[in-house]
Amino acid sequence: MGIVADRGDIVDGLPLPRFDGGWVWLVGAGPGDPGLVTLNGLAGLRQADVVVYDALVDDRVLDLARPGAEMIFAGKRGGRPSPTQRSISLRLIDLARSGKRVLRLKGGDPFVFGRGGEEALALVDAGIPFRIVPGVTAGIGGLAYAGIPATHRDSNSAVTFITGHSVTGDIPDNLDWDALAKGAPVIILYMAVKHMPEIARRLLEGGRDPQEPMAFVSNAATDKQTVVECTLGTAEDAAKQVKPPAIVAIGPVVSLRAGLDWLGAMKGERALDPDPLGLGREDAV
Amino acid sequence: MGIVADRGDIVDGLPLPRFDGGWVWLVGAGPGDPGLVTLNGLAGLRQADVVVYDALVDDRVLDLARPGAEMIFAGKRGGRPSPTQRSISLRLIDLARSGKRVLRLKGGDPFVFGRGGEEALALVDAGIPFRIVPGVTAGIGGLAYAGIPATHRDSNSAVTFITGHSVTGDIPDNLDWDALAKGAPVIILYMAVKHMPEIARRLLEGGRDPQEPMAFVSNAATDKQTVVECTLGTAEDAAKQVKPPAIVAIGPVVSLRAGLDWLGAMKGERALDPDPLGLGREDAV
Repeated sequence: MGIVADRGDIVDGLPLPRFDGGWVWLVGAGPGDPGLVTLNGLAGLRQADVVVYDALVDDRVLDLARPGAEMIFAGKRGGRPSPTQRSISLRLIDLARSGKRVLRLKGGDPFVFGRGGEEALALVDAGIPFRIVPGVTAGIGGLAYAGIPATHRDSNSAVTFITGHSVTGDIPDNLDWDALAKGAPVIILYMAVKHMPEIARRLLEGGRDPQEPMAFVSNAATDKQTVVECTLGTAEDAAKQVKPPAIVAIGPVVSLRAGLDWLGAMKGERALDPDPLGLGREDAV
Repeated sequence: MGIVADRGDIVDGLPLPRFDGGWVWLVGAGPGDPGLVTLNGLAGLRQADVVVYDALVDDRVLDLARPGAEMIFAGKRGGRPSPTQRSISLRLIDLARSGKRVLRLKGGDPFVFGRGGEEALALVDAGIPFRIVPGVTAGIGGLAYAGIPATHRDSNSAVTFITGHSVTGDIPDNLDWDALAKGAPVIILYMAVKHMPEIARRLLEGGRDPQEPMAFVSNAATDKQTVVECTLGTAEDAAKQVKPPAIVAIGPVVSLRAGLDWLGAMKGERALDPDPLGLGREDAV
């Protein structure tokens, strides 16, 4: 069997994989815009009997599911406790054992701070066959909708992604924040609004420049997208204006937004600057 | 105008954006499998008059283009020098000025070591309107096809992506390799096969464990995908067996492949281990 298992008529006659009963597909929904769902993701949504989805999945992505599919919410809502990871895994197993085609839909990519590996190992333990359908992670694709590239030739040959929220709810204490500060010139943080003061303090202690440009992108790639720009030195105050979920970008690439905010330009909200880093004309075409 | 600009019949009647003449779309093709192309990517390919593509784009992705679209190769082939970045940008500008719908197709994501920002700034300088269509980057989605998650709760709260190939062709010398070694527990390298001995040496000097698991994933998410597993200490020898293009993963998540290689399991090549990190049963469901 190849990667593309079966030719079918699932999406415009494209050769996309068939979803068999008793299987679970772990699918990344991308950051928000349904246009960032992958073809395999759409093929899964079109065939699934049941979709188990997280809080971070945009309604317009859920609308892609087959009419009549059972939609099960597995996130945190209105202050009520979210289902435990164990209860979600058990539910996926039960649904698959009943012969259903079960699509587990996660915001972004299932393997980037999405606990997809844990759920998949629970399926392995139960003998349930599964497929991983990667998605566009918010720390790359969501930032792109704010005109911030994760990398840029003149800015950074490395980028670090960090979650600001460990299993215990605190910032991860098993990380060497001093080394992270001195490592990649660009740092992209997930789930970091709550602990921003502490994270900014550790990065500054590690030698990062308080003048470094920084942006919070809330609800990236959705109709509610908002961007708050600041510097690392003013991050604590800026974070107070930010409503999660947000992706945080720190580093020189944030300045490129003045030249690359294609969505703002498309909406007529800004004119783009061809030389946002101030490198001079010889670097332009 | 919203993020999804126009309802049309481009892909199964889905509300995807219209591609106007004189525009350039910078589109990420994903790591290989055409099922990882996004819906906006497919919408672009279905509408484009001309597709300017790189060497790393899989033929099956090119097959998604509208029949009759002009296909222009802009990569390196057979030892001949590749077009310069400047000549590619000028070509995109000329094509757009002639009123064509120009799709610039890049492997993975245009903003992850893809020079998408440079091309977009050249378009800004020329007054050409553009859209960014993010893609699944090979360092996440390609590794997922080898059963290696970029992050895992028990393994890492941070991951660093590094390109092994700077503009000059050497390893990036503006990076603090010592700090990178001490920072994120998982390091994912792009274009690093050639300079692997030097990179491994710097990471070991920075304190990484020579026993650390490591994998080279060549032609990720294509029919030619091959995986070479080794340790950081044996990376130099292992690299000799590897044919680029390859993604390199270093860190504990590589061990998870024994449990998460869903593609190998689907092909009947291996049975999956529900406890690949040897954590014991209490951590399983």
